[in-house]
Amino acid sequence: MSTAPAAAAAFVASGVPAVLEELRSLFGDRLSTSAAVRRHHGEDATHHIAAPPDAVVFVTSTEEVQAVVRACVRHRVPVIPFGTGTSLEGHISAPFGGVCIDLGRMNEVLAVSAEDLDCRVQAGVTRKQLNDYIRSEGLFFPVDPGADASLGGMAATGASGTNAVRYRTMRENVLGLTVVLADGRVIRTGTRARKSSAGYDLTRLFVGSEGTLGVITEVQLRLQGHPEAIAAAVCSFETLRGAVETTILTLQMGIPVARIELLDELQVEAVNRHSRLDYPLKPTLFFEFHGSQSSVEEQAKAVGELAADNGGSGFQWAARPEDRTRLWEARHEAFWAAKELRPGCMAITTDVCVPISRLADCVLETRADIDAEGFTAPILGHVGDGNFHVVLLIDPGSADEISRAEALNQRLVERAIGMGGTCTGEHGIGAGKIDFLELEAGDAIATMVAIKRALDPSGLLNPGKVLRDSSPAG
Amino acid sequence: MSTAPAAAAAFVASGVPAVLEELRSLFGDRLSTSAAVRRHHGEDATHHIAAPPDAVVFVTSTEEVQAVVRACVRHRVPVIPFGTGTSLEGHISAPFGGVCIDLGRMNEVLAVSAEDLDCRVQAGVTRKQLNDYIRSEGLFFPVDPGADASLGGMAATGASGTNAVRYRTMRENVLGLTVVLADGRVIRTGTRARKSSAGYDLTRLFVGSEGTLGVITEVQLRLQGHPEAIAAAVCSFETLRGAVETTILTLQMGIPVARIELLDELQVEAVNRHSRLDYPLKPTLFFEFHGSQSSVEEQAKAVGELAADNGGSGFQWAARPEDRTRLWEARHEAFWAAKELRPGCMAITTDVCVPISRLADCVLETRADIDAEGFTAPILGHVGDGNFHVVLLIDPGSADEISRAEALNQRLVERAIGMGGTCTGEHGIGAGKIDFLELEAGDAIATMVAIKRALDPSGLLNPGKVLRDSSPAG
Repeated sequence: MSTAPAAAAAFVASGVPAVLEELRSLFGDRLSTSAAVRRHHGEDATHHIAAPPDAVVFVTSTEEVQAVVRACVRHRVPVIPFGTGTSLEGHISAPFGGVCIDLGRMNEVLAVSAEDLDCRVQAGVTRKQLNDYIRSEGLFFPVDPGADASLGGMAATGASGTNAVRYRTMRENVLGLTVVLADGRVIRTGTRARKSSAGYDLTRLFVGSEGTLGVITEVQLRLQGHPEAIAAAVCSFETLRGAVETTILTLQMGIPVARIELLDELQVEAVNRHSRLDYPLKPTLFFEFHGSQSSVEEQAKAVGELAADNGGSGFQWAARPEDRTRLWEARHEAFWAAKELRPGCMAITTDVCVPISRLADCVLETRADIDAEGFTAPILGHVGDGNFHVVLLIDPGSADEISRAEALNQRLVERAIGMGGTCTGEHGIGAGKIDFLELEAGDAIATMVAIKRALDPSGLLNPGKVLRDSSPAG
Repeated sequence: MSTAPAAAAAFVASGVPAVLEELRSLFGDRLSTSAAVRRHHGEDATHHIAAPPDAVVFVTSTEEVQAVVRACVRHRVPVIPFGTGTSLEGHISAPFGGVCIDLGRMNEVLAVSAEDLDCRVQAGVTRKQLNDYIRSEGLFFPVDPGADASLGGMAATGASGTNAVRYRTMRENVLGLTVVLADGRVIRTGTRARKSSAGYDLTRLFVGSEGTLGVITEVQLRLQGHPEAIAAAVCSFETLRGAVETTILTLQMGIPVARIELLDELQVEAVNRHSRLDYPLKPTLFFEFHGSQSSVEEQAKAVGELAADNGGSGFQWAARPEDRTRLWEARHEAFWAAKELRPGCMAITTDVCVPISRLADCVLETRADIDAEGFTAPILGHVGDGNFHVVLLIDPGSADEISRAEALNQRLVERAIGMGGTCTGEHGIGAGKIDFLELEAGDAIATMVAIKRALDPSGLLNPGKVLRDSSPAG
């Protein structure tokens, strides 16, 4: 799962020198070919094989992106869009070389409408930057994948995260996009209307396309008004099943919980150590409730009763903003906390999503599988959506561990798909899950390939990602 | 706006006799070439030019749809999918002839999961049939365009309607599809997971593609649990602006109203007459609130205060189910009620959607435009989404009235697009809004055309709809 496509070797981006000469005249020192910059842009925090691009260009406008794409396509050189580099499936590696477009300097909030609860941002604006910007207007942007990712990158990868159980994912929160296409044209998709049935839904096609169909340069987003009241709580359970069952019942009762996050015993241990907390070493749920004061109380009471019925105890409330911040920072640090459980390890992070009714089975079978293999591997997840992760802590020098971890991931994906679920709830396909997408999508892969070829006939946009047949055309 | 594409004359489906012979051997008397059946299948309730198909085939399975599509494509004969024929922009006309696939007999509910709040239905199941089927399990399917449309047709047209302000549209409520493609392959899109980031979002691409990219034969849908409490109310306003401002404030305050529908004075007159009601002849809002008992009361109280601040009076409650049914039936009959305002008239129905902040301006400028033209034309709409309709009641024998009505519609669409809105909130493009889609989408049209050509290279799937360049290839 971590190998670059075999075709990589067959393609040589021989136009690189010519393209770099052209781009250098346009971008000056905003074009970098330094080894450190290139390495940083081709490498993510995971086990996926890093492959640096030939150069990185730091753009400041849609027109500049257009110029880069045009030059690269003319010289048959791959283009790899880059936001913050926090994706997790090898999305940013450059197995065929090429030019990385770093959109981080396109970080302007272009428009905010409190009346319409929407905004338009350049692709490099990060979610925290946006939330800081709009807080004083009583607004927030709910999609929260943990990392302070760029909104363009979050759109491109179809990100979601802790709040998705209530506020849904990027798919439902992006109203429209500006996209630079492989042929150098710039299009705007969507409108500011809350709904539309005008033609094919190009917005949703580009959301989650991972830079393989075009480069997203601007994003129109729905915003939310700050709820009147917010309360968070932590609850420990005697068993993993009890925590998962509480989640299932919460969803089935239609309680509009804003966040419901699972940490297994091992993840709690990691979080306690990393964030200096002292939660009981038991399977644990983190909750957050949004609404009017009375609605929040009603929700919390209902969930508290469900938890008590399922072996939950020791509800700890975090009503003060600073306590909530501490709680969610701990959750967001969970990946780094997990890595500290085994110093020097490499983390293989999995990501599946199943129908809620199958969540308990899927989590428990996976826990048993991990234990049978003897891995140190916490389970955590956005269980309100049926979405969870395993962080497999592997000795990077052990071929045996790596191959057993990959086999475990394969079994996990097959288990999830067999239960009517998906091979990735939120991390996307990147380079890491191409085989699994084929397993899940079946004949629909050919439809994806047809769309890819129609919009990127030379196969130069983020090649080697999402689809097997996406290497640059010979 | 009601003319068939000029290219229609240039294409002759010369393969029709051969395809009919082939289909007759497969379908026997489920293949009809009777004039009455053909006319019924090529004609909608609107002013759009009707064009009957050469034949209608009544299918009962995905395999049968596959057989029809394969035969038609082999003989270069157009295919027009048909659900209940309740679309409003000439979607079902057959300007190039061809075979209409009537999916009405594919009316089986295949699976319902109360635990996962989802179901799978054949494309011909109607929304009322589904709701009758699942009511005893405490579930309902919220998308309600008024007509008892088929769920396959609703997916194909991206339908929405009265409940969308809270429960959103088909885009957000379809989890997956079974689709027969132009090349005869059958694909399944999506999974039963609540979210996924696995590859291109084919589900959302087919939703709203109006039969031009494939024939939808099965639909996986999200369901909702019946709210603990429902209350509906009717409120009259001194001015149209007061009614619209109340809507805007309700949305901006984040009150999770389930329905908020505007009827102007003329529409109230029509509804009173048609449904034997006696609402005051004033601009009127119909509301519905869903939630727990206390939440419904809280919502209703807040909206009542906003209405009173904006010249609203005479809140009439409809808490009993039979009173609510009467209210919403009257709303759903609004189109027919409007037509009775001018016996013998033809109705030209418009459909735009704008950002909420521009709704008052858009509605009032449109009302002034209608009045300046001297038309009898009520305004009504799903104003919680910024979506409204004008029903222009026209003398079908008056070329002058028709051309002035078309000009008014053109101005309305330009007004909506100029305000950041869309040329269609929910009726779709069909044959009627091809020009307007070009106006709205700009260069993005070429991307839609590229996708159409990639998935339907012969241009045989519902030709003459959505895109100008969608006539059958030479």
